[in-house]
Amino acid sequence: MTKLFTSLFLLLGLLSIKAQTLQSPDKNLSMTFSLTDNGTPVYTLSYKNKSVIKTSKLGIETTDIASFTEGFSVKDAATRSFNETWQPVWGEQKNIRNNYNELAVTIEQKSIENRFIVIRFRLFNDGLGFRYEFPAESKLNYFIIKEEKTQFALAGDHKAFWLPGDFDTQEYSTVTSKLSEVRGKMKDAVTPNASQQTFSPTGLQTPLMLKSDNGLYINIHEAALVDYSCLNLELDDKNMVLNAFLTPDAVGNKGYMQAPTQTPWRTVVVSDDARDILASKLILNLNEPTKYEDVSWIKPVKYIGVWWELITGKSSWAYTDVPSVKLGETDYTKMERNPKHAANTDHVKKHIDFAAEHGFDAVLVEGWNEGWEDWFGKSKDFVFDFVTPYPDFDVKALHDYAASKNVKMMMHHETSGSVRNYERHMDQAYQFMVDNGYNSVKSGYVGDIIPRGEYHNGQWMNDHYLYAIKKAAEYKIMVNAHEAVRPTGLSRTYPNLIGNESARGTEYEAFGGNNADHTTILPFTRLMGGPMDYTPGIFQTQINKYNPDNNSFVHTTLAKQLALYVTMYSPLQMAADLPETYNKHLDAFQFIKDVAIDWDESYILEAEPGDYITIARKAKGKNEWFVGGITDENKRTATVDFSFLPKGKTFEAVIYGDGKDADYITNPQSYEIKKMKVTSKTKLKQPMATSGGFAISVK
Amino acid sequence: MTKLFTSLFLLLGLLSIKAQTLQSPDKNLSMTFSLTDNGTPVYTLSYKNKSVIKTSKLGIETTDIASFTEGFSVKDAATRSFNETWQPVWGEQKNIRNNYNELAVTIEQKSIENRFIVIRFRLFNDGLGFRYEFPAESKLNYFIIKEEKTQFALAGDHKAFWLPGDFDTQEYSTVTSKLSEVRGKMKDAVTPNASQQTFSPTGLQTPLMLKSDNGLYINIHEAALVDYSCLNLELDDKNMVLNAFLTPDAVGNKGYMQAPTQTPWRTVVVSDDARDILASKLILNLNEPTKYEDVSWIKPVKYIGVWWELITGKSSWAYTDVPSVKLGETDYTKMERNPKHAANTDHVKKHIDFAAEHGFDAVLVEGWNEGWEDWFGKSKDFVFDFVTPYPDFDVKALHDYAASKNVKMMMHHETSGSVRNYERHMDQAYQFMVDNGYNSVKSGYVGDIIPRGEYHNGQWMNDHYLYAIKKAAEYKIMVNAHEAVRPTGLSRTYPNLIGNESARGTEYEAFGGNNADHTTILPFTRLMGGPMDYTPGIFQTQINKYNPDNNSFVHTTLAKQLALYVTMYSPLQMAADLPETYNKHLDAFQFIKDVAIDWDESYILEAEPGDYITIARKAKGKNEWFVGGITDENKRTATVDFSFLPKGKTFEAVIYGDGKDADYITNPQSYEIKKMKVTSKTKLKQPMATSGGFAISVK
Repeated sequence: MTKLFTSLFLLLGLLSIKAQTLQSPDKNLSMTFSLTDNGTPVYTLSYKNKSVIKTSKLGIETTDIASFTEGFSVKDAATRSFNETWQPVWGEQKNIRNNYNELAVTIEQKSIENRFIVIRFRLFNDGLGFRYEFPAESKLNYFIIKEEKTQFALAGDHKAFWLPGDFDTQEYSTVTSKLSEVRGKMKDAVTPNASQQTFSPTGLQTPLMLKSDNGLYINIHEAALVDYSCLNLELDDKNMVLNAFLTPDAVGNKGYMQAPTQTPWRTVVVSDDARDILASKLILNLNEPTKYEDVSWIKPVKYIGVWWELITGKSSWAYTDVPSVKLGETDYTKMERNPKHAANTDHVKKHIDFAAEHGFDAVLVEGWNEGWEDWFGKSKDFVFDFVTPYPDFDVKALHDYAASKNVKMMMHHETSGSVRNYERHMDQAYQFMVDNGYNSVKSGYVGDIIPRGEYHNGQWMNDHYLYAIKKAAEYKIMVNAHEAVRPTGLSRTYPNLIGNESARGTEYEAFGGNNADHTTILPFTRLMGGPMDYTPGIFQTQINKYNPDNNSFVHTTLAKQLALYVTMYSPLQMAADLPETYNKHLDAFQFIKDVAIDWDESYILEAEPGDYITIARKAKGKNEWFVGGITDENKRTATVDFSFLPKGKTFEAVIYGDGKDADYITNPQSYEIKKMKVTSKTKLKQPMATSGGFAISVK
Repeated sequence: MTKLFTSLFLLLGLLSIKAQTLQSPDKNLSMTFSLTDNGTPVYTLSYKNKSVIKTSKLGIETTDIASFTEGFSVKDAATRSFNETWQPVWGEQKNIRNNYNELAVTIEQKSIENRFIVIRFRLFNDGLGFRYEFPAESKLNYFIIKEEKTQFALAGDHKAFWLPGDFDTQEYSTVTSKLSEVRGKMKDAVTPNASQQTFSPTGLQTPLMLKSDNGLYINIHEAALVDYSCLNLELDDKNMVLNAFLTPDAVGNKGYMQAPTQTPWRTVVVSDDARDILASKLILNLNEPTKYEDVSWIKPVKYIGVWWELITGKSSWAYTDVPSVKLGETDYTKMERNPKHAANTDHVKKHIDFAAEHGFDAVLVEGWNEGWEDWFGKSKDFVFDFVTPYPDFDVKALHDYAASKNVKMMMHHETSGSVRNYERHMDQAYQFMVDNGYNSVKSGYVGDIIPRGEYHNGQWMNDHYLYAIKKAAEYKIMVNAHEAVRPTGLSRTYPNLIGNESARGTEYEAFGGNNADHTTILPFTRLMGGPMDYTPGIFQTQINKYNPDNNSFVHTTLAKQLALYVTMYSPLQMAADLPETYNKHLDAFQFIKDVAIDWDESYILEAEPGDYITIARKAKGKNEWFVGGITDENKRTATVDFSFLPKGKTFEAVIYGDGKDADYITNPQSYEIKKMKVTSKTKLKQPMATSGGFAISVK
């Protein structure tokens, strides 16, 4: 009896020592940290007393030293509070508040080798971030990660907005289903891609958006993905537990670590109001302030390009029709030019004219450089040199012409996934840009990665993407990386990362179409980590008008295309359609010309993932406001509450809405433009067609 | 009956069409090419009517298209003869004759996709070279190699001088055994290495030296290894057939090919006189002439260095004793200096003094740059930056001091196998060399390769090594790459590749020792492809005189160390021992000072692999001759026939021989220096101790 009592007493004593709790500044969120009997770290999270994350394990399994998974005791636990307001170089709002309570628990594995790690939790009003830290003092030096053992044990079989977990691509359509339905829907969800590697019948990507039956919106992602492999989740669909599943490298390892170091932050954004998810700045707040002293050269960009005609198949990237070329050996001047080659001097000059006439900052040109004949799917190492133009593309003349019209050229660096080759040419390629007046680059990583066996989302490539961004900064170049790893807020630290793709962009409207609800979900998923170069603005929704062989169509109305400039926040916005089409719809095009791309404030007016989004934003440094509203395949009437406007003043609003007979399949180009007076008291009821939308400019 | 006759007739007819024969210019060598009944290409080779290669298959197995292995018919067969004499930038002789008869057979796979390849044979007086060519016209474009199916079917169970086949290292001791004994001896042959990956219990490396019972010497290797993976051999020890076994990449593929292209040459050097093997220039002849217009900056180098004291453990590469550092974060100026750190300004200045006093071209310094604390075995990506010196190494002062003494500094770029990191810093590192007066670099690839999963000898790394050489040439820098793939004569095309390691060098004398017969074998194996930076000249053969904890000893006599400067041809020769030791033996050191490193002519006087080698060479542009003779663990008396000297003249020879009581174990430092008059009629009988040797200079 005495012995039993003593044991119980000790057990209780240990538990009380181990248990740590933390609340958010507004006390809506509450978390606990504790150790299990065998010394495994666990945590929980609740929102307004509703369970968000049930008891979930934490830990790191290693390949080469004892794992950080059990046998821990608490060595130290420190709390602090933090509150600051900072200004991003560009963003949805000019001031961002970073306010959290922090718990840093130092736990040690005395029984193994007197080793300790820190698990740092930051609890914000909008969610939780935590990471593992490996201090120099613990003398870990080096270790290799076999798997991160972080869990997110969910409180129920939530509704999920999910993509198949994949080491290479995020370019899948979002599936909306109960978590319990994931396994059954996985096969159909995995559609073909230029490079893909799924890993589990219940593998999922982050940002993963969830909605619980009891009304909680939960978003799981990561922040500050640096020198680590990208987080995926594997669902245990019996217990509704999400287990971390890191992207491996060519030999199956998941991370090479040198102390002092840390993992990225694991993030759980949570609210009972979906709008709060979109308003959350938690991921940016968990990233470091910018490392650049001079950011004056970083500016948002509105651009057009020689691009959509390529995507639709109207024109060609390649200069010739030969099946195979060798850079430095193939003499293009002696070859027959494909008349569909779009990146030619005259054609680009017309784009420069159009950009200048309508006030765009830049013109993107793809297919200007040698190598497009056999760039894809050949595992070709020396695929591009990034500096040698095709014979019909006069770099010097175009530089001079664009400069004379005060338009910048936007560079295109497609790597074909051959990143050793890209890095070998990177300095020359960036210098070429400086020499020829390009201050931004759209880079691409289409296809399987070379070095072979590496994945787009592994530590190797994540290191590369950041290398490319940092080196670009040395040349004062802004980067818009496509097919790169999904963003995790790194644009706070490296604001010359002005965009990413990392999801199904508008190009898929020419490859069979995006779902009608696609852009009502993306802000809750892909955009949580950073802006997307979604390239909206397609007015000619029937692709066969450009390419008779392509019967794809855009799965939105024209008005919804306008709304995307507001709902899909990005400091980089393209007017993606052809100038000849915009010239036919200059009234609607006016909104694209007017809409701001950098903001003082943003107001999430209405939001439900998969259904609708209505957002208003105030242009940076101007008394101009822009509103965008979109809906899914269902018609809807949005309510625009103009209470964000200054009180007591009347403004003129121009409303670009769906026509009465608009329908995204049968009549997508029907739109109506109306003007009306608005004040801060105005509440506008604005109807939207199926997959429709509206845009409003207020001056 | 008629049908049968017709078939027979057709069969004979086809056979006669298929069969091709070729003879060497001197008619000693004869080869055949034919197709088997199923259209598999096969070849044979004989020397003076003795079979060298029995009927052996040729072909390439692919992963993605129909393989080039069978179903062929002959489309065309063309022969030609070639005879030229060319001058290498540096070499064993000033004129090299390139004389062969060629057979180029075009074979097509009509049944598959009307596809054709060329197999090109070049038959020299000293052996055979052949390769596969994939012409542009056959519209192959791209394919991936699963395995090269080249065979070398040997005529018997030859004596072999072999190393275990390995994708990463050649740093094994040579095993001498019958081929049938390979399997039984493999386990002991695979000794530990910093990076190694064997592949088969009968896997072998090239150059593979063989000796048949009927007196033929056969050497199998490859020439012009460019954009392809390194050849290994897997022995079928029932049939004594050597099968090609290429080095795979991280995902198991063995080559990524784009037509028009070709494989490296597969080489069989053969003679009934072992001296002909050493005299063969077949591998150089199968490489392309140099691509450089200006080669005036490429010069042979005799050097000393801050090196042997590191290898023996007397001194340290690292500046501090901490276990882990981060470049750009670790502040070395605030750390305690290890007093054993050798690469410090004062110590290096003394080496510059010694080099200047004794006429050496350059001083190598290792351990001068930040990062040596944790450079090995950590799979550390950013391991060195190649430009940042430790605090006690004053680059500018040493540059000025060396320049004032007319001595060059030799750069050291250890990569730790982290080649992405090396390539990222390569331009800056080479520019740093130019800025600071370094015109040659010793590069190193110790440890497993990053990108992980790639091997030292795969296509990926072979591309890297050549990239490093070509880029060095842009900066007029000579390269001496250690732990790189074994050479294949590429120094003809890229003569700034002045040396390689790619075998057990002298460093192993401090790691347990090289076998006494080691250097009697290397010229027949490793040196077939190009010069080795063997770093001879160790006078203090007891390593514990430098480091009491190291009881290794040099497995040669001192005199043999001198002989190696002649027997181990290289345009790059190090006097590897410490200046303080040379100062105790200045009489013997005189030979190292005198010996030439570039030659008008070479005379292989005596040779038997594994037993002995005696070579004489005439210094380039001078009436000076140098002779080196070595033996294995057995004493031997060499016969030096001076008939290579001009007739009718008398010269003074200085003979550096083993002392009468010399023995490589008990008395290695015993040597005798004698002078004598010699003429072209002199035949000197020169005794050698166990693992002994002698060196002679003639003026």
